[in-house]
Amino acid sequence: MDIEAYAGKLTTGAREASGAIANASTALKDTVLHRIADNILQNREFLQKENEKDLAAGREAGLSAALLDRLTLTDNRIEAMAGAVRKVAGLKDPVGRVIDGWMLPNGLKLDKVRVPLGVVCIIYESRPNVTADAASLCLKSGNAVILRGGKEAIHSNQAIHRQISAACEAEGLDPRIAQLVQTTDRALVPHLLQADGYVDVVIPRGGKGLIRAVVETATVPVIKHYEGICHTYVDRGADLEMAVAICRHAKCQRPGVCNAMETLLVHEAEAEEFFTRMGPVYEQEGVELRGCAASQRLMPGIATATEQDWRTEYLDLILSVKVVGSLEEAIEHINRYGSAHSDAIVTTDFARAQRFLDEVNSAAVFVNTTTRWHDGEQFGLGAEIGISTDKLHARGPMALEELTTYKWRVIGEGQLRE
Amino acid sequence: MDIEAYAGKLTTGAREASGAIANASTALKDTVLHRIADNILQNREFLQKENEKDLAAGREAGLSAALLDRLTLTDNRIEAMAGAVRKVAGLKDPVGRVIDGWMLPNGLKLDKVRVPLGVVCIIYESRPNVTADAASLCLKSGNAVILRGGKEAIHSNQAIHRQISAACEAEGLDPRIAQLVQTTDRALVPHLLQADGYVDVVIPRGGKGLIRAVVETATVPVIKHYEGICHTYVDRGADLEMAVAICRHAKCQRPGVCNAMETLLVHEAEAEEFFTRMGPVYEQEGVELRGCAASQRLMPGIATATEQDWRTEYLDLILSVKVVGSLEEAIEHINRYGSAHSDAIVTTDFARAQRFLDEVNSAAVFVNTTTRWHDGEQFGLGAEIGISTDKLHARGPMALEELTTYKWRVIGEGQLRE
Repeated sequence: MDIEAYAGKLTTGAREASGAIANASTALKDTVLHRIADNILQNREFLQKENEKDLAAGREAGLSAALLDRLTLTDNRIEAMAGAVRKVAGLKDPVGRVIDGWMLPNGLKLDKVRVPLGVVCIIYESRPNVTADAASLCLKSGNAVILRGGKEAIHSNQAIHRQISAACEAEGLDPRIAQLVQTTDRALVPHLLQADGYVDVVIPRGGKGLIRAVVETATVPVIKHYEGICHTYVDRGADLEMAVAICRHAKCQRPGVCNAMETLLVHEAEAEEFFTRMGPVYEQEGVELRGCAASQRLMPGIATATEQDWRTEYLDLILSVKVVGSLEEAIEHINRYGSAHSDAIVTTDFARAQRFLDEVNSAAVFVNTTTRWHDGEQFGLGAEIGISTDKLHARGPMALEELTTYKWRVIGEGQLRE
Repeated sequence: MDIEAYAGKLTTGAREASGAIANASTALKDTVLHRIADNILQNREFLQKENEKDLAAGREAGLSAALLDRLTLTDNRIEAMAGAVRKVAGLKDPVGRVIDGWMLPNGLKLDKVRVPLGVVCIIYESRPNVTADAASLCLKSGNAVILRGGKEAIHSNQAIHRQISAACEAEGLDPRIAQLVQTTDRALVPHLLQADGYVDVVIPRGGKGLIRAVVETATVPVIKHYEGICHTYVDRGADLEMAVAICRHAKCQRPGVCNAMETLLVHEAEAEEFFTRMGPVYEQEGVELRGCAASQRLMPGIATATEQDWRTEYLDLILSVKVVGSLEEAIEHINRYGSAHSDAIVTTDFARAQRFLDEVNSAAVFVNTTTRWHDGEQFGLGAEIGISTDKLHARGPMALEELTTYKWRVIGEGQLRE
């Protein structure tokens, strides 16, 4: 079969199967999810055998140790993957929830009810657990899904996907509700991204290059999960002990994730005392600092932050540092150089906290805590498919509810409009 | 100035001015809106003089009488335009509304608050009142707007826009919060559609060709206001008197709009009696019918509906008619051929009404009333910028609330994540 025909089979298949999952009961969906988890655990050896093929190919191709590690399906990770699927089964079904409603003066009764988006296409890289995570979130929210994973994980993804298909078939659900793209040929991807009328949304999960390529090619709507250039601003009069603990956590606890701090802003009135306490902590943690002139004067020997540093998501133990003269300067810096992902202020001043919350244009703004909280599970939303950096539809954590849309229902008794 | 530089000036200008309108008080925004309305009324003669330039050019270019009519700024239309702006001033400000919030077990306090989208770009055709309508909705919802109207209305749009700018300046608001593209050169448009980081959303309002071109070129998110292939299904056992009144209204009251009926489906058990009553009504209204074989047998002489007819938005006194054997067949036809805009059932059966509401995948589904209600004002949402046929962000009427997004606010006392 040629690529275009295969893409058409995937997209029409998903559309045809989408009605079955959209109208499936919560009980059926949860049963299928538990069966997927059972299958994953029962076929651990098969998963690891297939995973070994990817690892061998990866070693051959010279993948870094970090990438090979992310690719590996250890016993623990297989158990965690099954556990995550069961967790989704335990979440509240978003479909059918009435989110608003009223009666009009003419007696028409209106409401808005949550319904699935329809067909979701997820394009992702390397980690094979995304196959199970994304499929279970889409299944629970009543969506058909087309999964397009990276070529490095193709055998692992196929092995996991087989457990999903088997669970659907065992429960009498059309397995086309969760299809994995079986080829690694990149020529297929544009056909998915331009399948208007068949694919309702594309969610790219991966590096900037992947996301940019998807946005440039897609004609169907895209929800981006882009970079996090996150800031912490230590205000004049801040509790410096709290500030040190927050700034250590935001940078060091897990530097490779999108909600980790990349730039530290410090009010000039606190800079000397704060750096005296903070500097040794970062030194001990192995953090490389890149500073403005003022911070270099206070911490001699640190590197110079360039214009490019302020715009960089390091995802590493590197931090750019700037001394600012005022709250306004901090806000302006964040709105100018940040990526509107997650930004925090450490302060004791009520009015300045309010101004920061009002004027920083980010998906999540924090007072006296770490940006690392920005996560659907931590926010109490259950599992998430990612953190949207878009402003439309979903901003911040994209959980089950954000995988739905709504429809209007209008009930009359023959009323006509004048 | 070259086109690219001019586009850059528009988009960076809008971004720079967006903070001023995002943080403006409701009182200031409403004052500016009333001043726009005042300016429009006080400069009626100027508006009509400029409008005459467009009309003369339109006559020269051979525009149809219908298009010339839509373009004309009569006294009544100028008053209606000013009235619409005042109405927006009277609507509730969506910005700052807290839409959800809770406390986490660790004591973190979260909420979600509505904030403006940022910079909205509206691309529209012919009718000059859209300039005032779209600008006032964006202004009230705290957004900067870039308006790109059709070349047929350029002088009228410029004249209206001048009233908006003057009102902003008089109240000390940066007039770049509402900019009109001053050139009709189409080469400018792609620069707006690809202004990632400057334009937050593009809303095309116009025909299918315009919308398709926007979707294919844009890298910034688009919310489409596409066609309405709307159905009414007359169920077995329906109140036929009600059905006749609804089907007359849905087709004839205003056939040129997106929520008018384009296809009538009738259960075979009612077809003979219903057509006997309905046929003469449509004949009197001058409606051309195009039917399936069964409806042709019952109404001899009507034209044959082709496969293409089921997919056509006539926007005219033409109606395709089909006799169906069951509710299932009606639902399948609607989901297959419709545009998921507005679809109605006329029925007395409770279970079948529920099934129709559940299984028809449209933005708005109606029981025992006309699809023509599908409108933000009629739904009680105040003015609308259009009816979204997308599933993401806004589905159906796009009113003030849909011109906002939200941000998460998280308040802590030094809590850190394990």
